[in-house]
Amino acid sequence: MGMVGGGPGSFIGKFHVKAAQLDGQIELVCGAFDIDPANSKIQGQEYYLDPSRAYDTFQEMIAREKELPEDERIDFLSITTPNFVHYEPARLALENGFHVVSDKPLTNDTDDARKLVKLVEETGLIFAVTHAYTGYPMTRQARAMVSAGELGIIRLVQVEYVQGGKADESKPDPTTGSRSWRYDPAISGPSLVMGDIGTHAHNLLRFISGLEVTEVCAERGAIVPGRKVDDYAGALLRLGNGARGNFWVTQAAAGFENSLKIRVSGTKGSLEWWQELPQILTFKPLGVPVQTRTSNGPGILPLSARSSRMVAGHPEGFAEGFANIYKDAAEAVAFRIAGKEADPLALHFPTSADGLAGILFVDAVIRSSDNGSSWEKVF
Amino acid sequence: MGMVGGGPGSFIGKFHVKAAQLDGQIELVCGAFDIDPANSKIQGQEYYLDPSRAYDTFQEMIAREKELPEDERIDFLSITTPNFVHYEPARLALENGFHVVSDKPLTNDTDDARKLVKLVEETGLIFAVTHAYTGYPMTRQARAMVSAGELGIIRLVQVEYVQGGKADESKPDPTTGSRSWRYDPAISGPSLVMGDIGTHAHNLLRFISGLEVTEVCAERGAIVPGRKVDDYAGALLRLGNGARGNFWVTQAAAGFENSLKIRVSGTKGSLEWWQELPQILTFKPLGVPVQTRTSNGPGILPLSARSSRMVAGHPEGFAEGFANIYKDAAEAVAFRIAGKEADPLALHFPTSADGLAGILFVDAVIRSSDNGSSWEKVF
Amino acid sequence: MGMVGGGPGSFIGKFHVKAAQLDGQIELVCGAFDIDPANSKIQGQEYYLDPSRAYDTFQEMIAREKELPEDERIDFLSITTPNFVHYEPARLALENGFHVVSDKPLTNDTDDARKLVKLVEETGLIFAVTHAYTGYPMTRQARAMVSAGELGIIRLVQVEYVQGGKADESKPDPTTGSRSWRYDPAISGPSLVMGDIGTHAHNLLRFISGLEVTEVCAERGAIVPGRKVDDYAGALLRLGNGARGNFWVTQAAAGFENSLKIRVSGTKGSLEWWQELPQILTFKPLGVPVQTRTSNGPGILPLSARSSRMVAGHPEGFAEGFANIYKDAAEAVAFRIAGKEADPLALHFPTSADGLAGILFVDAVIRSSDNGSSWEKVF
Amino acid sequence: MGMVGGGPGSFIGKFHVKAAQLDGQIELVCGAFDIDPANSKIQGQEYYLDPSRAYDTFQEMIAREKELPEDERIDFLSITTPNFVHYEPARLALENGFHVVSDKPLTNDTDDARKLVKLVEETGLIFAVTHAYTGYPMTRQARAMVSAGELGIIRLVQVEYVQGGKADESKPDPTTGSRSWRYDPAISGPSLVMGDIGTHAHNLLRFISGLEVTEVCAERGAIVPGRKVDDYAGALLRLGNGARGNFWVTQAAAGFENSLKIRVSGTKGSLEWWQELPQILTFKPLGVPVQTRTSNGPGILPLSARSSRMVAGHPEGFAEGFANIYKDAAEAVAFRIAGKEADPLALHFPTSADGLAGILFVDAVIRSSDNGSSWEKVF
Repeated sequence: MGMVGGGPGSFIGKFHVKAAQLDGQIELVCGAFDIDPANSKIQGQEYYLDPSRAYDTFQEMIAREKELPEDERIDFLSITTPNFVHYEPARLALENGFHVVSDKPLTNDTDDARKLVKLVEETGLIFAVTHAYTGYPMTRQARAMVSAGELGIIRLVQVEYVQGGKADESKPDPTTGSRSWRYDPAISGPSLVMGDIGTHAHNLLRFISGLEVTEVCAERGAIVPGRKVDDYAGALLRLGNGARGNFWVTQAAAGFENSLKIRVSGTKGSLEWWQELPQILTFKPLGVPVQTRTSNGPGILPLSARSSRMVAGHPEGFAEGFANIYKDAAEAVAFRIAGKEADPLALHFPTSADGLAGILFVDAVIRSSDNGSSWEKVF
Repeated sequence: MGMVGGGPGSFIGKFHVKAAQLDGQIELVCGAFDIDPANSKIQGQEYYLDPSRAYDTFQEMIAREKELPEDERIDFLSITTPNFVHYEPARLALENGFHVVSDKPLTNDTDDARKLVKLVEETGLIFAVTHAYTGYPMTRQARAMVSAGELGIIRLVQVEYVQGGKADESKPDPTTGSRSWRYDPAISGPSLVMGDIGTHAHNLLRFISGLEVTEVCAERGAIVPGRKVDDYAGALLRLGNGARGNFWVTQAAAGFENSLKIRVSGTKGSLEWWQELPQILTFKPLGVPVQTRTSNGPGILPLSARSSRMVAGHPEGFAEGFANIYKDAAEAVAFRIAGKEADPLALHFPTSADGLAGILFVDAVIRSSDNGSSWEKVF
Repeated sequence: MGMVGGGPGSFIGKFHVKAAQLDGQIELVCGAFDIDPANSKIQGQEYYLDPSRAYDTFQEMIAREKELPEDERIDFLSITTPNFVHYEPARLALENGFHVVSDKPLTNDTDDARKLVKLVEETGLIFAVTHAYTGYPMTRQARAMVSAGELGIIRLVQVEYVQGGKADESKPDPTTGSRSWRYDPAISGPSLVMGDIGTHAHNLLRFISGLEVTEVCAERGAIVPGRKVDDYAGALLRLGNGARGNFWVTQAAAGFENSLKIRVSGTKGSLEWWQELPQILTFKPLGVPVQTRTSNGPGILPLSARSSRMVAGHPEGFAEGFANIYKDAAEAVAFRIAGKEADPLALHFPTSADGLAGILFVDAVIRSSDNGSSWEKVF
Repeated sequence: MGMVGGGPGSFIGKFHVKAAQLDGQIELVCGAFDIDPANSKIQGQEYYLDPSRAYDTFQEMIAREKELPEDERIDFLSITTPNFVHYEPARLALENGFHVVSDKPLTNDTDDARKLVKLVEETGLIFAVTHAYTGYPMTRQARAMVSAGELGIIRLVQVEYVQGGKADESKPDPTTGSRSWRYDPAISGPSLVMGDIGTHAHNLLRFISGLEVTEVCAERGAIVPGRKVDDYAGALLRLGNGARGNFWVTQAAAGFENSLKIRVSGTKGSLEWWQELPQILTFKPLGVPVQTRTSNGPGILPLSARSSRMVAGHPEGFAEGFANIYKDAAEAVAFRIAGKEADPLALHFPTSADGLAGILFVDAVIRSSDNGSSWEKVF
């Protein structure tokens, strides 16, 4: 693969590289790592790349890789740039026949997102979005159980994502500091809390329930006085099949780490999952005792089993879930290149269509909130 | 005390009697236990009462008890009738100088509720409403910690109350069965889920946070197809000090028992409490390790300590929390009768004003939902 | 009932009275509450007893009650005196035809214990020992599941009881203080930690597994330097059917409250229970997902159901478990007096034979430890 | 690095390779992967090795690598062969100047283990043993807290390791099947349960407490009827500073996965850790509220912080803990080669001396058990 972004000082870029390499099937061979070509070279050296493949720009990378023989050029592009630089490299990659793995959100702008989805449809290329929480063995078990009908018809969903990173009011507000550009809506997106974590919560809800959020009634804002970016959002949800739901996200809850929780209730039972103890899935079936499911333990379905690298009782973490997105996307790419059908179980990674759904959801939340919490259609 | 309601077949009446008697300070001496005088007599015998004090009607009870010498008559009335028969006995008791402990909700109707609050103010009598979850040592610890400033300024609150009792769609809908009168809005109140459990969730939020819910944006309804009463409600909340909140209640979540959960976040930390493990309170202070608090353990404040009957490590349950409401109300009554000031720590039981706040909240949720989830003022 | 012990200043006596009265079926009518007759009178007044039935000594109580008409005299005696005063009132009660409920341990001395068991056999009277942890709905569920064969043949057991009450080394050692007589082996028994909590752990293991501990290899001692009484004991166990087990008790683990934990593994699954979250029983069946059982929830067996006073989801605590011992013993007494067979489900309270087994176990632990951890037979 | 063992069909070998490569600092360049040279070649191809460095035997590998220029030859050898083939490659590597990372146990035989420790002392080479549970951020936090005095003087320890893999009695006993050679004491070691998991439990206890187990009183055996290898062992422990402890391991507890639990109590507080929820460390300080510690959260000490790759709230798993052993050992090797002092925080991986302590412990447990549970000195 080749990478756009992830230059010196980037945490997320290195994290993507590690995730991609975890299973030894993906090799980083080129990159345009930084807006400054010199930094891109430095980063290339750090990854022991052929210096000629540490490119100055992503445009150059795509053009030059395309000129290489098929068995030498990259198979797909990994995009780890800031949010507002997701669209251009993705578009260019697709237009030049490269598959894509992109950090979320898909884009900052719904029009751009729609264009990418259209391009993916037209080209038939693979496009994965790294909503990492869908890679955990237990969220995949939840999806598989719903899909297998173990919960019956879904009636009610709740999702919350509670962090504390922006809770400390004694610290200077980040939107006024030296890195304030990061909090510029043009760069980070129109609602910080929704872009950062709201899209994860929404995506996970869709991933597990298999349902689309069709309408929202929402409020978003800054609960910390004087803050210029959103630090909380709440919403009432209506889902595709008539189910109802509740949504709550914030980055201003003092003392919290990364508390993404989801609950899905159907006619035959309910599921609960919590990101801070991701190795456990709680299943509350109607009328029989509550059960817990753990990786590769009893009752684990194939989608979950293929997403775990360990024997039962040996917990896996966030990094392995993240790596599952890369592993599956790479497998899909490899089969596509080989002209074969991929294992359907490899095709549960989030796609550009999922990315678009997330951006439309953020858009609807903002519209609703700005209209005094009106009910707004997502599509 | 004397009781209205709680005749043969009533679970809640007997539960009130046990709670009242748990600490050996309250004696049941008379009652008008049933709409059928014969049943009232039978119930009186079961409680070993003087037959002359098993009255035919609550009107008779109040009239006859008032004629007794002060040291023989009851000190307060306990009301455990169906919701639509809370108002009349309460009014009559107050007008005749008797203190009152009433099951929740205060009334089915906001006007009636306002009249009771006015009567309580005018007479200066004690009026307790049995929102039992406020009696747990750990919810009281939470209230005391917020009140002592250990959380700083409250910014965000979440409360959910998730039950599964009405989840089984294979069972005939109760609103169509032989006891369908129980689900008549005129008897049970205008929104079943809000009256049954929504008022508990709202009351607990106010009890712990010390804040008033001032505005709501809500949706309520029946998620089970064909059901005629509400089985879920969700709301976005605005609180008195500008804090924001989230609210979710349902009785249709398959597999759930009695999952009332609350989270309160302030500038200095967050608290979490869950009714199914009520002996634990989790405190997440800003920047230092997460802590747990348990009854009579380290860090327990006086309001919590006085609400526990056990040494540390010996869990208490729902019944003891419920009994704390009676114990405190009776202590307040006894001090009032003795003409003395009660211990301020005895005065944390829910009052008629709390009951009214609950009814106004239900009313606002219904108005909002019926107006397409408009923002509605609670007061 | 009549009580021996429980005078002014006694916590445990009042706790017994509350437990006995919780269900409204048992009335305290007389007592010999204190070694000082004046204190016995004071305590009698506090319980609103007829002054003539606040006796000077238990000998007087038993003699005088026996002279009363059958329908006026007490049915059973409750013994809540210090451990070294359990034997005499128990013996006298049995010899005079009174049933007995006694605090644990049965006696301090194995010969005395054997005599009581023999007396119980000869008289056919009811004798209950208040090992309270056997009264919880979930320990009874565990016993019922083992008894119903849901675990198969028991292979392995582990029990631990870890407290922190004697951990603080900065406090003066209690054996050297003004109440040092309490720590005199002649009064408190030959091993403090074994008498206080070891007997509970041993009894719970027998109660749930249905097996007898037949041999022990143990070490006991004081881990806090300079302490004169035992504060820890560990043992390897051999059980009646060839199963093996592990035992660990201490009162010197800093920061612990009342952590009694038990695990029982059979050929078909394992059970785990923890006293600090007593409302949950974890069942790990062989080859299928882990389950949790809660009071009156799915999968609850009759012995557990009859031991709970609440609907599912409303936790009960230690006091209600304790009260179950009294309730069952009183039911057994009532049926005996009525000349009828009691419900077999009422007969799961610990008896004098269980009390004797506990004392023989303590004795064997001490012998083993004093012999350099030899294997010692319990019987 | 070069590897001995880990040929086709080996799970543990591939797991070692992944762990070694997780951080991108260690490269596998050669191996003698299988007793069958053809399989070694195949495995080498799978790892994309230079065919000339997929050796026929470890003897050949060590000889040939030694002939290579210093900057081309391997720095250390990784040993992942069956237990009875740990000693010879380790000895040969040390004698030829190569550092070693070896799977546990160090050897099957105490004499061999002593020889290796002596060789390590004489050569000054790095020797790491992969007791993986010491690599978790939270076990390292526990060690660091004890070492920093946060628990005071250690008084009591408990460790248990409960698995269910050998619980199913309906399956043919592995010692009688086609792979029965695996259960031959000459190959797997003298006590299967002690070698497999007992050494882990013992090592973790030493790692966290910083204390040596000096004497044991133990019983080991097969609880499943007819089984020829040990499936449980229990022991009473005496530690170097006079502390006391309890030890329990089994692989025959139906329904269990990988339940390694440890509790350490000192004069100032107690710690608890459980392998199935490894992201949490519970600290119960004397007299103040119970706390939980999580990776990179508040109160985390440097040894733990350097052992985590993630920001707070993103759980890590077993693989990352395992990788920490390799990472630290490789760092120590690199510094040694560079002639510099390593960061002391890199030197907390288990060494050959730790491995020897484990083997002596197993030996003492066996001696004690075979002598009727006599107290036996470990050293």
